Amino acid sequence: MSLRYHRRRHQNKMSDKSKTEYTSQGVVKGSIPLFAGHPSRDLIPAREIQQIIDEGWRDASSMRMFEYGDEQGDPDLIGFLVERFNARENLNLTTDNVMIMSGSTGGVTMVTELLSQQGDAILVDAPSYRDALHIFNDHGLDIHAIPIDGGGIIVDAMHDELEKLRHEKRLPKFYYVVPTFQNPSGITLSRERRAEIVELSQLYGFTIVEDDVYSDIRFVDSVPPSFYELAKGQNVIRLGTFSKTLSPGMRIGWMFSDAKRIQRFVTSGEMRMGGGANPFTAKIVAEFCSSGGWDRHIQWLRGRYQTRRDMALNTLGKHMPDGVTWTHPDGGYFIWLMLPDGLHVDTLEQAANEANIYFASGKGFYVNPDDGAHALRLSYSFLSYDDLKRGIKTLAQVIAGLL
Amino acid sequence: MSLRYHRRRHQNKMSDKSKTEYTSQGVVKGSIPLFAGHPSRDLIPAREIQQIIDEGWRDASSMRMFEYGDEQGDPDLIGFLVERFNARENLNLTTDNVMIMSGSTGGVTMVTELLSQQGDAILVDAPSYRDALHIFNDHGLDIHAIPIDGGGIIVDAMHDELEKLRHEKRLPKFYYVVPTFQNPSGITLSRERRAEIVELSQLYGFTIVEDDVYSDIRFVDSVPPSFYELAKGQNVIRLGTFSKTLSPGMRIGWMFSDAKRIQRFVTSGEMRMGGGANPFTAKIVAEFCSSGGWDRHIQWLRGRYQTRRDMALNTLGKHMPDGVTWTHPDGGYFIWLMLPDGLHVDTLEQAANEANIYFASGKGFYVNPDDGAHALRLSYSFLSYDDLKRGIKTLAQVIAGLL
Repeated sequence: MSLRYHRRRHQNKMSDKSKTEYTSQGVVKGSIPLFAGHPSRDLIPAREIQQIIDEGWRDASSMRMFEYGDEQGDPDLIGFLVERFNARENLNLTTDNVMIMSGSTGGVTMVTELLSQQGDAILVDAPSYRDALHIFNDHGLDIHAIPIDGGGIIVDAMHDELEKLRHEKRLPKFYYVVPTFQNPSGITLSRERRAEIVELSQLYGFTIVEDDVYSDIRFVDSVPPSFYELAKGQNVIRLGTFSKTLSPGMRIGWMFSDAKRIQRFVTSGEMRMGGGANPFTAKIVAEFCSSGGWDRHIQWLRGRYQTRRDMALNTLGKHMPDGVTWTHPDGGYFIWLMLPDGLHVDTLEQAANEANIYFASGKGFYVNPDDGAHALRLSYSFLSYDDLKRGIKTLAQVIAGLL
Repeated sequence: MSLRYHRRRHQNKMSDKSKTEYTSQGVVKGSIPLFAGHPSRDLIPAREIQQIIDEGWRDASSMRMFEYGDEQGDPDLIGFLVERFNARENLNLTTDNVMIMSGSTGGVTMVTELLSQQGDAILVDAPSYRDALHIFNDHGLDIHAIPIDGGGIIVDAMHDELEKLRHEKRLPKFYYVVPTFQNPSGITLSRERRAEIVELSQLYGFTIVEDDVYSDIRFVDSVPPSFYELAKGQNVIRLGTFSKTLSPGMRIGWMFSDAKRIQRFVTSGEMRMGGGANPFTAKIVAEFCSSGGWDRHIQWLRGRYQTRRDMALNTLGKHMPDGVTWTHPDGGYFIWLMLPDGLHVDTLEQAANEANIYFASGKGFYVNPDDGAHALRLSYSFLSYDDLKRGIKTLAQVIAGLL
């Protein structure tokens, strides 16, 4: 793995997943991957899942988990999600509005493939989720990035870009956003701006694709209503996942949209050929959810992740030199660190790596990498408490040494 | 489900999977789905898989199955496939040549997305696998179908089409084929033609995508060498799956190709974002394979499927009226039935459905549906022995009544 890791670094193919692999393999002893944006192993309820299986699939109906599934996904899981989200949010979901996906990745991939064609314009935040940008680039999309501030995307700038694109007769197909506890910044898009963006989407006719994967990991009482709720389900595709709150390895997520869109995805060739998202793991997840285990686990997770967030913020406040600033997320996995203008992230990355500290350079999160030349992403979701504190403290010392 | 079934029928959105769903739900009592192209439930080793889990994941390493995986897929499963196929075929696979996919569907989808762009020309057989055509249509590809005979695609016709496309400066990006026990015809592409097609692929610079999902279900001692073997791994993408020989619901398959191509897929945005193909089920499959269970199961399956094939052929021979002909597959799941010119498949389908017999109309397997107006696909993989015999006998009676 060591070789593959270095080859990847050399190719500058950054990926949370590849880093995890390398980390969990412990190739570079003592190194601290502050970039690792996935759940710590002790936050995955493996034993409960095992128990679900031991009890779950001995009844005959569970044989279906071994077979091709309904293209729309496990009906029990769809039913659970409809009830759960209607009860918690101001939604009127029916089973026609929900589709089970292979993680939120399955949703982003399918939306990209079926809602856009090579060369189409789309809108994203600057910075935006690196791996989603990677998917859009694979598809040859024309990505227009709009700057964000503490309240999320700057709507006036978005409006200006839309006018420009309308003038060029190339209005965007969709706006992709992680609206709550954004990856990489941890920033939440304000309710007011969400409402304004819904109006813009109706005015300019683009779809809002909200990758809503962190909102359950919140350290505050509530988060702004989703685009799906504000737009009453019209021309919005909302993606969710069990990867952050149950297990990434089971690859199960969901999509909410209008019945017509859902049907378009359900009747796609990919779903026809392979059947719905992994029937085997979807059945296990459905059992876990209907037992109440998922929501109990989410409640427990919030406290654990908040402890990690607090630990990271306290360590930053205690050790970071003046001139370095960072975001204070109300949930999710990430903190966005901004360096003084005099310090380039490449310089810091080299020095940090020599100190066995690895982080996600800001450059990876921008269509124009130079826009991230003085920023980086830290994650508090994966590391042990000691590594988290030691990693941030060491990073602070490295930064101080470079100022 | 009944409603959804009828809506789908009405939309003419044919799918093995949707039909299965409806069938296994038993919505239409007594109906016989001769189209169902997937394993009979009693041919899935559910108990063995359960045992693997009960024993398998109690060691610490198995915690990794719950986490994001390596983009290339489960390393143990890759290692097993390298050894298994090198030992059985004249191959020199290394771990750099193999990637784990979400069934062969994951491979077809990724190949389509990353090797072609909307409007690109590709080549397929006529008839060809319906759901693959569906994926190519979703992607907006320009599909050129070449007729097949008892030996597979007619190479002269393929050559003529390539010359025509070369003249139009739009050579195909790839040729998609199920070379062994083809879906829908059950026909195997001859060794000689495979060698000729490899030469054409070098001459005209297109990739061969071989969807090799049935070759292990053979009732003869051997099958022709794969394109991947004949081309020494150059410019060939070979797809395989555990869906036919283990469990479709676990969604695990593989891809063989040259190291550069594999790297391109491994480093795609989709893999970066979601990690490799389902780490949870891949781990279970890897354990099942390394225990020797998979190859033992395949040996057992061959006898079971051969019994079903013989039963289907005997029943056809006994009851089909003169003028109806059919293929005699040496493996796989399917028999291709050809009707007399005087009988249109639409007429037969209506009459058969009234007799509660459902089959896959030949029209779905052609780019130009009318080319399949006098053909249909039967599958012997799914039905009980009694239903298989009763279904074919009834179908024969319905046909006789229409002649």
